[in-house]
Amino acid sequence: MTTFGESHGDAIGGIIDGCPSGIVLDMEAINIEMNRRKPGQSDIVTQRKESDTVEFLSGIFEGKTTGTPIGFQIKNTNQKSKDYSHIKDVYRPSHADYTYEKKYGIRDYRGGGRSSARETACRVVAGAIAKQVLKDVEIFAYTSSVGDLFLEKPYQDLDFSKIESNTVRCPDEAISNQMIEKIKSIKKDGDTIGGTITCVIRNVPIGLGEPVFDKLHAELGKAMLSINAVKGFEYGSGFCGAKMKGSEHNDQFNADGTTKTNLSGGIQGGISNGMDIYFRVAFKPVATIIQKQETIDNQGNIVEMQGKGRHDPCVVPRAVPIVEAMAALVLADFWLMNKIYK
Amino acid sequence: MTTFGESHGDAIGGIIDGCPSGIVLDMEAINIEMNRRKPGQSDIVTQRKESDTVEFLSGIFEGKTTGTPIGFQIKNTNQKSKDYSHIKDVYRPSHADYTYEKKYGIRDYRGGGRSSARETACRVVAGAIAKQVLKDVEIFAYTSSVGDLFLEKPYQDLDFSKIESNTVRCPDEAISNQMIEKIKSIKKDGDTIGGTITCVIRNVPIGLGEPVFDKLHAELGKAMLSINAVKGFEYGSGFCGAKMKGSEHNDQFNADGTTKTNLSGGIQGGISNGMDIYFRVAFKPVATIIQKQETIDNQGNIVEMQGKGRHDPCVVPRAVPIVEAMAALVLADFWLMNKIYK
Amino acid sequence: MTTFGESHGDAIGGIIDGCPSGIVLDMEAINIEMNRRKPGQSDIVTQRKESDTVEFLSGIFEGKTTGTPIGFQIKNTNQKSKDYSHIKDVYRPSHADYTYEKKYGIRDYRGGGRSSARETACRVVAGAIAKQVLKDVEIFAYTSSVGDLFLEKPYQDLDFSKIESNTVRCPDEAISNQMIEKIKSIKKDGDTIGGTITCVIRNVPIGLGEPVFDKLHAELGKAMLSINAVKGFEYGSGFCGAKMKGSEHNDQFNADGTTKTNLSGGIQGGISNGMDIYFRVAFKPVATIIQKQETIDNQGNIVEMQGKGRHDPCVVPRAVPIVEAMAALVLADFWLMNKIYK
Amino acid sequence: MTTFGESHGDAIGGIIDGCPSGIVLDMEAINIEMNRRKPGQSDIVTQRKESDTVEFLSGIFEGKTTGTPIGFQIKNTNQKSKDYSHIKDVYRPSHADYTYEKKYGIRDYRGGGRSSARETACRVVAGAIAKQVLKDVEIFAYTSSVGDLFLEKPYQDLDFSKIESNTVRCPDEAISNQMIEKIKSIKKDGDTIGGTITCVIRNVPIGLGEPVFDKLHAELGKAMLSINAVKGFEYGSGFCGAKMKGSEHNDQFNADGTTKTNLSGGIQGGISNGMDIYFRVAFKPVATIIQKQETIDNQGNIVEMQGKGRHDPCVVPRAVPIVEAMAALVLADFWLMNKIYK
Repeated sequence: MTTFGESHGDAIGGIIDGCPSGIVLDMEAINIEMNRRKPGQSDIVTQRKESDTVEFLSGIFEGKTTGTPIGFQIKNTNQKSKDYSHIKDVYRPSHADYTYEKKYGIRDYRGGGRSSARETACRVVAGAIAKQVLKDVEIFAYTSSVGDLFLEKPYQDLDFSKIESNTVRCPDEAISNQMIEKIKSIKKDGDTIGGTITCVIRNVPIGLGEPVFDKLHAELGKAMLSINAVKGFEYGSGFCGAKMKGSEHNDQFNADGTTKTNLSGGIQGGISNGMDIYFRVAFKPVATIIQKQETIDNQGNIVEMQGKGRHDPCVVPRAVPIVEAMAALVLADFWLMNKIYK
Repeated sequence: MTTFGESHGDAIGGIIDGCPSGIVLDMEAINIEMNRRKPGQSDIVTQRKESDTVEFLSGIFEGKTTGTPIGFQIKNTNQKSKDYSHIKDVYRPSHADYTYEKKYGIRDYRGGGRSSARETACRVVAGAIAKQVLKDVEIFAYTSSVGDLFLEKPYQDLDFSKIESNTVRCPDEAISNQMIEKIKSIKKDGDTIGGTITCVIRNVPIGLGEPVFDKLHAELGKAMLSINAVKGFEYGSGFCGAKMKGSEHNDQFNADGTTKTNLSGGIQGGISNGMDIYFRVAFKPVATIIQKQETIDNQGNIVEMQGKGRHDPCVVPRAVPIVEAMAALVLADFWLMNKIYK
Repeated sequence: MTTFGESHGDAIGGIIDGCPSGIVLDMEAINIEMNRRKPGQSDIVTQRKESDTVEFLSGIFEGKTTGTPIGFQIKNTNQKSKDYSHIKDVYRPSHADYTYEKKYGIRDYRGGGRSSARETACRVVAGAIAKQVLKDVEIFAYTSSVGDLFLEKPYQDLDFSKIESNTVRCPDEAISNQMIEKIKSIKKDGDTIGGTITCVIRNVPIGLGEPVFDKLHAELGKAMLSINAVKGFEYGSGFCGAKMKGSEHNDQFNADGTTKTNLSGGIQGGISNGMDIYFRVAFKPVATIIQKQETIDNQGNIVEMQGKGRHDPCVVPRAVPIVEAMAALVLADFWLMNKIYK
Repeated sequence: MTTFGESHGDAIGGIIDGCPSGIVLDMEAINIEMNRRKPGQSDIVTQRKESDTVEFLSGIFEGKTTGTPIGFQIKNTNQKSKDYSHIKDVYRPSHADYTYEKKYGIRDYRGGGRSSARETACRVVAGAIAKQVLKDVEIFAYTSSVGDLFLEKPYQDLDFSKIESNTVRCPDEAISNQMIEKIKSIKKDGDTIGGTITCVIRNVPIGLGEPVFDKLHAELGKAMLSINAVKGFEYGSGFCGAKMKGSEHNDQFNADGTTKTNLSGGIQGGISNGMDIYFRVAFKPVATIIQKQETIDNQGNIVEMQGKGRHDPCVVPRAVPIVEAMAALVLADFWLMNKIYK
């Protein structure tokens, strides 16, 4: 996939190359994914309204993919560029303003331009198509922590059908209520908060992934770390595994090749082993806060600024479909590539 | 870089493409890095002896790089293939035996073949050259935990010149002694243990990294996750950042564009901002233990096996130069690519 | 560059990645190139009308490139899909209908779909931007033959300012008139005719091109061969050079490193040497003729068909800007890549 | 494939990535191809002796490919670097000496270094493996002209089993004798001569090739143009097709989807159609002649030089297996990639 677009340009969009031909696309499923990501969907996310309607421009004929590139665009209909004129010459703390200007010598300051999380809408479009390519593979992401509120249960004890039953996308009713209260309270303070998302992938065929540089978990990690605000990635036993002994950590085989435990997280030597793949992704708190902060302008003067606009107090609920989309894209790539070995 | 080679074939090696011309290579520095990685260097690592002498076959003329591909090989001189005949038909728990055989329908069972950590020697060669390309950039990796022994001090309080003063490569004398004792005790039990490595990179020019899919930290993460036994990656505030509020997490600017804190870990929006880059990598315990384990053979029979051979009780000390090498390769790539924007 | 789009879908378009930042784009120059390619511009080309207005969707801010991906689209406004219903089940001779259907199992039969030359409009957009990146490099393509009418003069004797003075884009008045008459007569017969384009590139910096697989002329050749209807490519002495002796063919040096002759065509060992680059591209006659032909349908029945619609009697005049555009894209890529070696 | 190596370094070699697993490699077939390319095989080629023994270092286990990278090297055993000391500071006419030095600022002057045709030995190794991957596909290249001596017969009238019956590799006895005499006479004069090679590929599956930028003939053209000394490429009707009318050029279908004529050269819209693929490649005369020539040194002084060493009077006979090897590599890549669409 290749994408383009700034948050306040005319449109964002992308091109999906290499999608197999003859797939009957379920447009409704694509729209559902888009709605899961879009702003304004609940009272714990940004109240910005974006229509987020995807238009497919090519690669689809009579409802089926043709095997040629799928071009699409999402028009930017609700840009309020004036909202950003106050930051034209100012570098917001922990935003990409400073690095973009130093790298490129120019920056589209409206809404973060290319660094805006709006870009992730394109990932959701492509991910929704990748899910349809993968068919039997099931991908479930959910909010596993907000601030210091953790969903401690192992994923095996959760009912994934409840993920969409609340606005924070956590499948445990008690914890999800606490998370929602936490986010509302943070929002009231004009502050923001971080969190983590856990993703579980079932029915992955054995053999996906390349053995050395392009290991399956390395590509999953890269895909997750490429999402805005992500600070960490771990799969299987993750950072906890670094505290363990080999005698505790090894996954014993059953006679059918499955394993009794799954600390490996469904991947051995970079290649899927048929067990569930699971991983956890850390998101930092959104940098735009509705509080006064000191910062500098492009002349190096210390200035005071206050975030305006309509921002997310916690990015995690809306990031759940993005994590799923990126996971689907990585798996679809490896699934297609793996046909070469047969 | 492209690499080839199995641990028990004739040789491993690689080709480094795109290295600038006219660089006077310091061969001694390359050998020092190789010796930091090689087996048998101390009593807490595998006692396997490998000469690990790198031969350069091309791309260097009268001591300077010529800009053409640098081919190199490291002969495998100490293979004891007989050591592995007992695992020919057996899938070792938490090894890649099973996934390789399912993916490729064939596997070189001697020493793990392509999945052996021996492959990382090639990364160290290429990384040592990348370090010489980067010149002013300083890369320091060190052991920051072994099992549940953690070096809690922030990296700013450490003296990196002490990293090589002990065999576990931890720059704090008290903790390093505890770690060494821990590893010796684990080794005595025929067991293994995990750990983490922290890496700090100084003097990175502003502007390295691509804004969307190929963010600097996404490529660093992929590079680290591609190292054998790695289960997790976090940079800057990492998983801790997911617990924080925006008002705590934002890095305030100084007038010169540096920041007062550095929870961002030297990267904003995927692009280096000139502050120190730092990240942490989690390694699982080595899967080969010198204890009896149940497993299966390729007929699906439950069999008992016991690890033989000469294995590392803890992979972390020898992985320190590998982490540095992969970091150097990623930075050198972005450093070269960044010239395009100028 | 990545492109998408079928001739009769909603739009065609593309994404240009890696364009340096801070370039003030001359939109007028882009439109001029688009008009040179567009249908309906004269009486020797197809009379189809397409507005061919390019909309830039991203990557440009206040008239300058921002270094982020440049997305663009060209709406398809004059599609007459009904024109093609007669070929829905029929494979036209020497078209891609049969190969697309066999490869993908499905085909968008309207106007050739993805195989339509309409796709080349995107190349012209990207090429027009590449020309602006290259600045001092001058690229001149012209019609050097139509059928058996050849412009025999060496390019050094031509006045390139006359290329646009006639509709066939041949800089010699006498020959161009003959070519135009030829094409009109062919058109009257409902037939089509092939031809060649010569391209001359001046002021190319020394050092562009990679020494082995990605030689400068290999990439130029691939770029030209990727244009619809191209059957051959030669540079410098080309096929004539294959008849010569080394003592005749070698280009002797002047003291300043230029050469007395230039049979090498400005490239030695895959790398530009600073002399003019020149090459010649062969185009077959357009396959759609307004004459009765026998062919088969997708059941294998022999059927009779007759081309309808508005087609070019000779593709060469409109291909001149496409050849220039592809040459500009190849050179701009190598020019940017070459900065890495400095 | 990635390759490395200069003609007078320790070794040349390469890595073949993505070769499917489980292929029983016929080593004898690889050696036969190497012997077809190697110097000293007859009295019309260079009398330099190179043993050209390929050593496989990885990716093969018990005679079968394992799916992991195949590393190989060919030691340089017959380098006479002293032969080249006379050209250390001199730029030979129509060689890459000047462009390498300008691009890289340094050059390995011994035997042309990286620009030496010795590099093509690696292509032959990889091509020989690609031929074994392709199985049913038959690839025949032969000398179709030397200087102005042309083999005029269409390829359908030739007996390919006679290609190896003479040293010039032309399947027509009368013409091949004339060609051999021509080359001997040219050699006596210390001169060199150009020529062309025609390549015919049979039993290509329908559907290989990508529709836009990576058309099958575009990749074949690039591969051929990347071979040293190549100046032109045409496929199917080629440059002759540019003189024809559509009514003459179109290939009419038979009921089974084959075509009555094959001016298309087995490719429509960039995708193979199942008919024979054929193309022609033009080689310039070798630049090193054993005659006095004026040239310049790196100070810009005019100097006189005379070629020494053991050079080919005509590169075409030894290039025949190289053309086949590159064709096999391109086809194998597309053949593997095409599995993705199924």
